Amino acid sequence: MAKTNRRSKIGLTIEPSAGNGLLDRRIFLKRAIATLSAAGVGAIAMRSAGAAEQTNLEPWTQLPGEGFREYGTPAKYESKVTRTLIRSQPGTTGSGASRTPLEGLDGMITPNGLHFERHHSGVPDIDPAKHRLLIHGMVKRPLVFTIDALMRYPMVSFIYFLECSGNSQLMYGPTPPALTCGQTHGLVSCSDWTGVPLRILLEEAGADPGAQWILAEGADAAGMSRSIPMAKAMDDTILAMYQNGERLRAENGYPVRLFLPGYEGNMSVKWLRRIKVTPTPTMTKDETSRYTDLQANGKSLMFTYPMEVKSLITKPSPGQALRGPGFYEVSGIAWSGNGSIKKVEVSADGGKTWAEAMLSDPVLLRALTRFRIPWKWDGGAAILKSRATDTTGEVQPTREKLVGEHGTNVIFHYNAIQAWSIESNGEVKNVYA
Amino acid sequence: MAKTNRRSKIGLTIEPSAGNGLLDRRIFLKRAIATLSAAGVGAIAMRSAGAAEQTNLEPWTQLPGEGFREYGTPAKYESKVTRTLIRSQPGTTGSGASRTPLEGLDGMITPNGLHFERHHSGVPDIDPAKHRLLIHGMVKRPLVFTIDALMRYPMVSFIYFLECSGNSQLMYGPTPPALTCGQTHGLVSCSDWTGVPLRILLEEAGADPGAQWILAEGADAAGMSRSIPMAKAMDDTILAMYQNGERLRAENGYPVRLFLPGYEGNMSVKWLRRIKVTPTPTMTKDETSRYTDLQANGKSLMFTYPMEVKSLITKPSPGQALRGPGFYEVSGIAWSGNGSIKKVEVSADGGKTWAEAMLSDPVLLRALTRFRIPWKWDGGAAILKSRATDTTGEVQPTREKLVGEHGTNVIFHYNAIQAWSIESNGEVKNVYA
Repeated sequence: MAKTNRRSKIGLTIEPSAGNGLLDRRIFLKRAIATLSAAGVGAIAMRSAGAAEQTNLEPWTQLPGEGFREYGTPAKYESKVTRTLIRSQPGTTGSGASRTPLEGLDGMITPNGLHFERHHSGVPDIDPAKHRLLIHGMVKRPLVFTIDALMRYPMVSFIYFLECSGNSQLMYGPTPPALTCGQTHGLVSCSDWTGVPLRILLEEAGADPGAQWILAEGADAAGMSRSIPMAKAMDDTILAMYQNGERLRAENGYPVRLFLPGYEGNMSVKWLRRIKVTPTPTMTKDETSRYTDLQANGKSLMFTYPMEVKSLITKPSPGQALRGPGFYEVSGIAWSGNGSIKKVEVSADGGKTWAEAMLSDPVLLRALTRFRIPWKWDGGAAILKSRATDTTGEVQPTREKLVGEHGTNVIFHYNAIQAWSIESNGEVKNVYA
Repeated sequence: MAKTNRRSKIGLTIEPSAGNGLLDRRIFLKRAIATLSAAGVGAIAMRSAGAAEQTNLEPWTQLPGEGFREYGTPAKYESKVTRTLIRSQPGTTGSGASRTPLEGLDGMITPNGLHFERHHSGVPDIDPAKHRLLIHGMVKRPLVFTIDALMRYPMVSFIYFLECSGNSQLMYGPTPPALTCGQTHGLVSCSDWTGVPLRILLEEAGADPGAQWILAEGADAAGMSRSIPMAKAMDDTILAMYQNGERLRAENGYPVRLFLPGYEGNMSVKWLRRIKVTPTPTMTKDETSRYTDLQANGKSLMFTYPMEVKSLITKPSPGQALRGPGFYEVSGIAWSGNGSIKKVEVSADGGKTWAEAMLSDPVLLRALTRFRIPWKWDGGAAILKSRATDTTGEVQPTREKLVGEHGTNVIFHYNAIQAWSIESNGEVKNVYA
């Protein structure tokens, strides 16, 4: 079989595309009967001379099933695929974050029930009939909007990722956290967002052309607020009303949130109640005591807006054991706040050699992009890594380079290459390698 | 103001793009301070000299909010946005369909909790550890797959619509139904689907190159089954495992369903338990007694696969009253099982004149495409229509043409142009016009 192992009957090479068993990303695009068994896929399915003994008629084929529901919930056998809650303030219930279980998901969209959350004082219960949005400051005409009014404005829709600037912060620590992929990196999600371009409202209010900033403030008890450059406000910023088709959920800013594509998540202020047009940044508590990036030298970077190019292998990842040598698909997500994903490379030998992964269409600006590459695991120890490059040419850095430049005082903007160690027993571990 | 009403200060024309107030779809792409008030948008917001009296601090700004949840649910103030359940068999709970509330949604993705359902004998409660998929018939190697095995195969992801062939069937009736848009047309939804290309499994089983068909059968008590041309099975058909990121829900086929992009929904067999490779169509009960299209002459069309080009205005639509003359955005969805959407035209004068609407990116093959066009309603009676054209050049027919060709015995494949009447009191009605 050694011969078949190198070249299938129809002439498609299955030589590795990089070291330690990575195969060509295109092998499944072509018809290749022999390729599959050569790659070890054939061993997954059970051969069956006759059907009956393998496919007994289970009880659910015999009796009528459950009825209809007005609003559905996940499959009960998937009840473990949930957000991980991590509270940051002892004694509170709503300060902290919940993380998306990335290792349990596939595709590019995050279902609304699993979108990550970050709250500074819990989720306010806002009556949309009473909520108001004020636009004031350096404007000709201060304006107040009801939600009914906002719903009448022209809208736009886009698929965008949202990432908390504190995502992956445990990776700055001295030892890699022994957590799942989602628990470590799950402060990123991706949705179809629909809302009113902020530009339209600022123009209606008659914003002073000399004003370079706006302040955005939430209606939560924390009064979460950030300063935003006017250029971004007039560019692609929207007042989001819908997420994945339906009206925003409470934990994602109902009845209206700001959405700044590609920028750190906290700037997309939820439960938006006020926009003030200002000459300078307001230097609110949330951008001085928090959301500044303390560097090794004791100085801080402020106003670090776009989330940098990043990728993660979600399958396999910690908590998912490989069940013996053979074929596996390595799959993950990549994104960049500065553009779209140009390529993702994967290594199975700790970074010595790299092969380009397949990107799943559509590859969209500032959206999660799913990548995939086939891998034939030989059962030995292996280190899997992924490395994304965006359309600006930026390449995801090594952890060594990132920490070398920014130190480990900082907890924000961690985007280094992630390494997963595959142990010879099939276990997957988070490692610095 | 008559002058401003025609041309704003920066020179952007706001002359109608078609009769009865339709404006140019591009007006909001350009900076146009005067355009907005000229278009009547300005009247929506409240002018406010001072902020305080309009933006009192509501109780939710004063006290900590709710805590985190492992899996979220919709905003409580949106509890009316639900699927409409219509049971087709008296005395049963799970035979019939539930419809997506299209009039309450925006963007292109349908949230999983609101994806339409069509069941023939309810939703089976399938234990994924016990479920098996059999591939047999004209194959060299009959195969049986566990769900764990399927999860190891290479996958692909795409955003696709799914439409029941019986969608909009009430529109064949003698009088237009006085229902919401979703109740009439809500057997269409759109998701990010991820799964294993069926081609890979058929090749592994060694499907006979001479076999022209497959039979697909579900594990529900109805044993729902359809014949599918081998060409489609080997093209873009997948065994779907994930929908909008998470594992399939029970009502959408958990633990595995077939998915045939663009084809009538019933062929994407849910709870898939068996694929048989066959020389001819199997002529199952579901494709003889049902899902054939009875024509006016008493003969039936069989195997009418792709869902034809279609569009709907979802805002405004029945149940949503316009609140006085002024600016409104007309928004809706368009799709085609034969390709992607090339253009959508909108008429506000019952079809006398048409203006091209803006299509929201991304415009994807066999996915819902959101269209939008600004409209200045003068307060008089109006008939709104939308007309989609797909990339094959097919244009959505008038109801008169559709009924003329197929009669009214048929209940499937209704894709005619939909007309909504705007009454002078702002009410929206379904009309044949």
